[in-house]
Amino acid sequence: MRLLLISNSTNYGGGFLDHCADEIKNFLGPIKSILFVPYALNDLDGYAAKTRERYVKMGIEVRSIHEFKNPTEGVKSASAIHIGGGNTFRLLKRMYDERIITAIREKVKNGMPYIGASAGTNVATVSIKTTNDMPIAYPPTFDALGLVPFNINPHYIDPDPNSTHQGETREQRINEFHEMNDTVVVGLREGAWLRIEGASVMLGGINGAKIFKKNEVPSEFEPGANLDFLLK
Amino acid sequence: MRLLLISNSTNYGGGFLDHCADEIKNFLGPIKSILFVPYALNDLDGYAAKTRERYVKMGIEVRSIHEFKNPTEGVKSASAIHIGGGNTFRLLKRMYDERIITAIREKVKNGMPYIGASAGTNVATVSIKTTNDMPIAYPPTFDALGLVPFNINPHYIDPDPNSTHQGETREQRINEFHEMNDTVVVGLREGAWLRIEGASVMLGGINGAKIFKKNEVPSEFEPGANLDFLLK
Repeated sequence: MRLLLISNSTNYGGGFLDHCADEIKNFLGPIKSILFVPYALNDLDGYAAKTRERYVKMGIEVRSIHEFKNPTEGVKSASAIHIGGGNTFRLLKRMYDERIITAIREKVKNGMPYIGASAGTNVATVSIKTTNDMPIAYPPTFDALGLVPFNINPHYIDPDPNSTHQGETREQRINEFHEMNDTVVVGLREGAWLRIEGASVMLGGINGAKIFKKNEVPSEFEPGANLDFLLK
Repeated sequence: MRLLLISNSTNYGGGFLDHCADEIKNFLGPIKSILFVPYALNDLDGYAAKTRERYVKMGIEVRSIHEFKNPTEGVKSASAIHIGGGNTFRLLKRMYDERIITAIREKVKNGMPYIGASAGTNVATVSIKTTNDMPIAYPPTFDALGLVPFNINPHYIDPDPNSTHQGETREQRINEFHEMNDTVVVGLREGAWLRIEGASVMLGGINGAKIFKKNEVPSEFEPGANLDFLLK
């Protein structure tokens, strides 16, 4: 399998997908067309247009799944897929409603490159139980595509030492997750991504990642780190 | 109905329930014993002990629902109830698992005072769809007790103008909620609470609230504001 799982679509001060455009081009190689899944946002046409505009600059054509009469046919005919960020609950619910889960899973297992950003990264993993999003819609399950055997927390952020806010820190939330679940969680900071090629997992981009295993002290990883152990 | 819906259990720099202890005593009046629901945290015994210790200082006895063989009997025999903060998904799931939803709803509709803090405030409202928590457990529905006809976002926080983080602001998240739902949302800042006595809704504590209605510009309310319109 080939996956590019990006923490965030936009870096501070940059434009949409700017920080990962070179990596996306390199990842797609000779592929010149992708299927885009805009279900994480409300405005499907607007989101598809924005994404198309960005990909055209890379010389890559975009078809959006919501433009297909039969979304499953869209998946079956795709050379690569990009699932965009937004609200993870809305995204996963719509993916189940449109019955595209199995088709995507099979295509990716058969080699179709998968690009996800933020919510689109969450749905590639075991479950959406480590999303940061507000639960604005009720999906039939929190189980996601399960393309990798771990979870990701995108937009991972370290505690702000100057904050007086009493809400849980991100690390506290992930610890709560591990009170009820065993799955490893990759806290992927903004600017970072995982590139998975078969049995290889490389941590790309900037800012690195913090990996949380149940009942263990979390570990820091720098950009460029090899994380193959995540698939073992 | 009588409800005290508190944004947060602990204010910055203060102890557990310190900022709202006077209001709780006033709200309970002659009642000298409460039923505590610790299901939002993992350590039920520890949470009950911490809450008992704090309430004893107010001269109020605490029984924790997890100490009852039959939780529903605990609810039925209670003079007042306090549902504590923690993870809203874990809390709501356990409330359904223990089949106490109907019993609580009926008791509160018949006059039993209800105190909620954070997650305990979320579950008093229409749904938990405006919680800030990580979805670490899958409840059978996001519908909650529905004691009031609106939702609350506890720990409401204004955008930090210095932040470079690309995750959604709280207001953006509530706007996303309104793309898919019609319910009014009260963004209750830390230090604030709603005290509901029959048809009266008063905004208490400090820092105030921001109220979001679908397709309308949100409105600011100062501490002491009358919010009776929320029940109309």
